[in-house]
Amino acid sequence: MTEIDALQHPFDAAVELTPATDGRLLGRTRPEYANMVGPFGGVTAATLLQAVLRHPDRLGDPISLTVNYAGPIADGDFDITARAVRTNRATQHWMLELSQDGVVTTTATAVFGIRRDTWSDTELDMPSVPSPETVPAQSLPDFIAWAHNYEMRFVEGAIPEEGAGEHPDSTATLWMREAPARPLDFPRLTALCDLFYPRVFLRHGRYMAAGTVSLTVYFHADAHEIAAQHDDYVLGTARTSRFSRGYFDQTARLWSRDGTLLASSHQLVYFKN
Amino acid sequence: MTEIDALQHPFDAAVELTPATDGRLLGRTRPEYANMVGPFGGVTAATLLQAVLRHPDRLGDPISLTVNYAGPIADGDFDITARAVRTNRATQHWMLELSQDGVVTTTATAVFGIRRDTWSDTELDMPSVPSPETVPAQSLPDFIAWAHNYEMRFVEGAIPEEGAGEHPDSTATLWMREAPARPLDFPRLTALCDLFYPRVFLRHGRYMAAGTVSLTVYFHADAHEIAAQHDDYVLGTARTSRFSRGYFDQTARLWSRDGTLLASSHQLVYFKN
Repeated sequence: MTEIDALQHPFDAAVELTPATDGRLLGRTRPEYANMVGPFGGVTAATLLQAVLRHPDRLGDPISLTVNYAGPIADGDFDITARAVRTNRATQHWMLELSQDGVVTTTATAVFGIRRDTWSDTELDMPSVPSPETVPAQSLPDFIAWAHNYEMRFVEGAIPEEGAGEHPDSTATLWMREAPARPLDFPRLTALCDLFYPRVFLRHGRYMAAGTVSLTVYFHADAHEIAAQHDDYVLGTARTSRFSRGYFDQTARLWSRDGTLLASSHQLVYFKN
Repeated sequence: MTEIDALQHPFDAAVELTPATDGRLLGRTRPEYANMVGPFGGVTAATLLQAVLRHPDRLGDPISLTVNYAGPIADGDFDITARAVRTNRATQHWMLELSQDGVVTTTATAVFGIRRDTWSDTELDMPSVPSPETVPAQSLPDFIAWAHNYEMRFVEGAIPEEGAGEHPDSTATLWMREAPARPLDFPRLTALCDLFYPRVFLRHGRYMAAGTVSLTVYFHADAHEIAAQHDDYVLGTARTSRFSRGYFDQTARLWSRDGTLLASSHQLVYFKN
């Protein structure tokens, strides 16, 4: 495991993997990405994507990723197995497991592929919002370490303040960017897809036990469109359709400033009230 | 493999699995669920869910399911391996592979769980539509065998007829039900989530090469709410947010007649135009 370079962004350290002789990839949780229990789920998802991106057999770019959070990840070392279960002419299917001391904490599947030029169209309208420079930044409570690595500028559905009370809907829309800012890439976009604090907090105006059980990211943007973002803000908007018996869903869309739909993301979240 | 009973619905035969001595589950494609290439993806997803539902170690009910279609399934026998990678107190995480002659055609992950009573709310409004009895039934072309097992009554975004031309958006909303009708259960609901013909056909008013690469289902309804549907119609509505370089997404919601959001479903689809 390498030490964090003074010039390296903590994100790059958090998703860094070292190949072991038996084919596993070795990683280590970083205190900079600690959440209330274990690391920020977005960085775990990004690390699993990175395991494929860095794999010598990888074909093409990320098309979709699903991560299932099976159990808590303890602070410290972990290892990832990434297996290409099927490679076609233009697509490749992966199964991944993240383990600690032989116990699986996280599973994932990923589809990678070589994109082709086709007819294209974005049907969804980007939300009409003020520019990020005119929206104040807001922070998650200080003890949530990972949030220090992100700038969040809420247009609607801001983080509930003390005594906020109930909110009629679960929509949050915010400009987001890494702090310090870095050029966007596939792992960074993956992490941004999980940047929305749990929708149930907004509805109730208070914190409660909640954690993602399954996260899916669909990558609409190709490598060229992602690189074109440089280190600019990304607009994210997320909403729940139903809260029922301990679980709720969240559908999110991530847009570039110029209206490119970069990714759609969906998750199912456990909660306890 | 048992023969189809004259009284058995073809769906039950299609998702039927026989345990082998080595722990694999053996199944067989059914001509009644043939699609243009291989079986209807919805029945494949339902069969993978069934592999967990019938597993002796299964804990609780389906919470989420992701199926990745890695390659075509040939007509004939297949086998499924279902592995519980982690069992917690109230949740269980599964990894599944469907293979033919040792070649993986389909992978899946599933989260099962024991639901608890919590605060609940449905935020999304059910589309306001006429009752199914007042909407005419429409069929997919006759050569699409699986569609004969479903009734589809389109409220908007009907299947394009010869010379239909372009359509401004990709939304389809329809009442759906098995033909002949059968009481709803988790595998049947899973199959209904994939009942929407490819959204790119609607936009272009014609058929083209298209196939799901990844499908996710979030089960909002518990076993009791699903059983309460009996054999009534389910309202499904689906839309794409972006078509880009060979792939598009689809987000679908399935509602009961009385406004219960039964499931959300998301998929990423390959297309060629």
